[in-house]
Amino acid sequence: MCQLLALNCKTPTDATFSFTGFCQRGGRTDEHADGWGISFFEGKGLRHFVDHESAVNSPVAELIRRYPIKSKNIVAHVRKATQGEISLENAHPFVRELWGRNWVFAHNGDLKNYHPTLHGQFRPVGTTDSERAFCWLMQEIAKSHAGVPSVAELTLTLKDLIPQISHHGTFNFVLSNGDAMWAHCSTHLHYLVREYPFSNAKLMDDDLSVNFAELNNPEDRAAVIVTVPLTDNEHWRAFANNHLVTFIDGAAAIHHDLEAAHAKLSAQLPQDMRDAIALTQAQAVEALARYKRNTLAASGAAS
Amino acid sequence: MCQLLALNCKTPTDATFSFTGFCQRGGRTDEHADGWGISFFEGKGLRHFVDHESAVNSPVAELIRRYPIKSKNIVAHVRKATQGEISLENAHPFVRELWGRNWVFAHNGDLKNYHPTLHGQFRPVGTTDSERAFCWLMQEIAKSHAGVPSVAELTLTLKDLIPQISHHGTFNFVLSNGDAMWAHCSTHLHYLVREYPFSNAKLMDDDLSVNFAELNNPEDRAAVIVTVPLTDNEHWRAFANNHLVTFIDGAAAIHHDLEAAHAKLSAQLPQDMRDAIALTQAQAVEALARYKRNTLAASGAAS
Repeated sequence: MCQLLALNCKTPTDATFSFTGFCQRGGRTDEHADGWGISFFEGKGLRHFVDHESAVNSPVAELIRRYPIKSKNIVAHVRKATQGEISLENAHPFVRELWGRNWVFAHNGDLKNYHPTLHGQFRPVGTTDSERAFCWLMQEIAKSHAGVPSVAELTLTLKDLIPQISHHGTFNFVLSNGDAMWAHCSTHLHYLVREYPFSNAKLMDDDLSVNFAELNNPEDRAAVIVTVPLTDNEHWRAFANNHLVTFIDGAAAIHHDLEAAHAKLSAQLPQDMRDAIALTQAQAVEALARYKRNTLAASGAAS
Repeated sequence: MCQLLALNCKTPTDATFSFTGFCQRGGRTDEHADGWGISFFEGKGLRHFVDHESAVNSPVAELIRRYPIKSKNIVAHVRKATQGEISLENAHPFVRELWGRNWVFAHNGDLKNYHPTLHGQFRPVGTTDSERAFCWLMQEIAKSHAGVPSVAELTLTLKDLIPQISHHGTFNFVLSNGDAMWAHCSTHLHYLVREYPFSNAKLMDDDLSVNFAELNNPEDRAAVIVTVPLTDNEHWRAFANNHLVTFIDGAAAIHHDLEAAHAKLSAQLPQDMRDAIALTQAQAVEALARYKRNTLAASGAAS
């Protein structure tokens, strides 16, 4: 299992506060020490940092905590290896180009026996189930549209494609092409929208507070998507399971319930596969509960 | 015009010394202040850093000068914009995936009226002639081989493809897929091989010396490819014009003279286009001569 962090913003926003808390889960407050990565869109361009070291020890992560990079779409990931060895090519986020645009993807979960037919232009460099799923998504998106589709059209395409992957296991993911952020929840994903009037926020994983009212302008707005809430004094919303949410300009703009399509395909799986997936998901629930207990305990000790 | 730096090494090698001198040309000792970038292969994985700030002022470049990243294939670039605005998506090196491998490309030069037919899986994200050339190379490489070819086979393919681009103007470039480094010289490119017994080296652009004998083992070997030599006490070799050299394991392994194919295609160009290309190349020669005079003068003053 891994953890995800993504920001979709109305105006270019720096993620140093959220990333600082998130990094602690990459080896200090949680066990996701098998690599990390973060991608920042800047117009059509991309700054992309990956490392197979733990996020708490990486000099590159330290730079990003200190150096504010402003972006409207940011995708970050800390990794606890389940499939694929610990190596740079297995670090999320993954990037591909399609139609002259960069596409960035990060995954939290575990897909069982997932070996899609990849006959086209997107092939995995590493050995993770996550990159295979991303390559298949990109291949099918490319086949579904003759040219660059709108965000609404892409959302409809993803709505059809996601259940074909998600019934293989846990498929919490974020995807961005710089225009929008798509987030899908199989089991665990939360979000909040920081907007006017802004308030204070205090990290759960680090002794750090910030008053966003002092840093932001009234027109700023940022949606923050994360596996487990980063702060203990803000209103985080849990995604419903098997829901796809499209974030545009810092707001949750389009919601799709994929439960029925997911359940239909899940029912076709053999019983032993369904049992294996359920076991993995139960282990993930337990790991997250353990992490929350530990973090809250540590947080209490420090206050 | 821009400047290129690339390393192809027998064993994983850090490039902090060469990159430190090279960075000075990104705004201090020379005028290439319109962005920079560097890519490090690590196995099949890639660390890729780009910035549209000047290399001398960029916090990310500062990190890389201090933080040794060991790699067998490194590609770096400082940019002086000729075509395409100053933006992140126009910063070299460019990266694409083909056959589950990363491919990295950086270009020094200027291609006149170069708008190749890009019908396939590689499209430029930015607006430079360089990225168009890279996309066309990748498209044609993909069409030329059913699966992953050997380094020797790829070299033969490049030998056929390069003149089809180089007759449009100046096409000094480096390309790597992590297995080898291909370097092509239209007008300006130099290389040296650092190997046992290693010696001292002193940067021309910075007050920095290093004794490679103290840092390296006898089995280490690194080929350093650069637009203008980085040091004034090592034996740099100038590439012959219109030559393609394939570097493997830190040595210049395969040489191809593309002069005849290049000249044949150049002769088919209209006279005004040939004049425009010759003018651009003369301006580049003058800019490089001016840079060498200034650097040597500054170097003399500091000693």
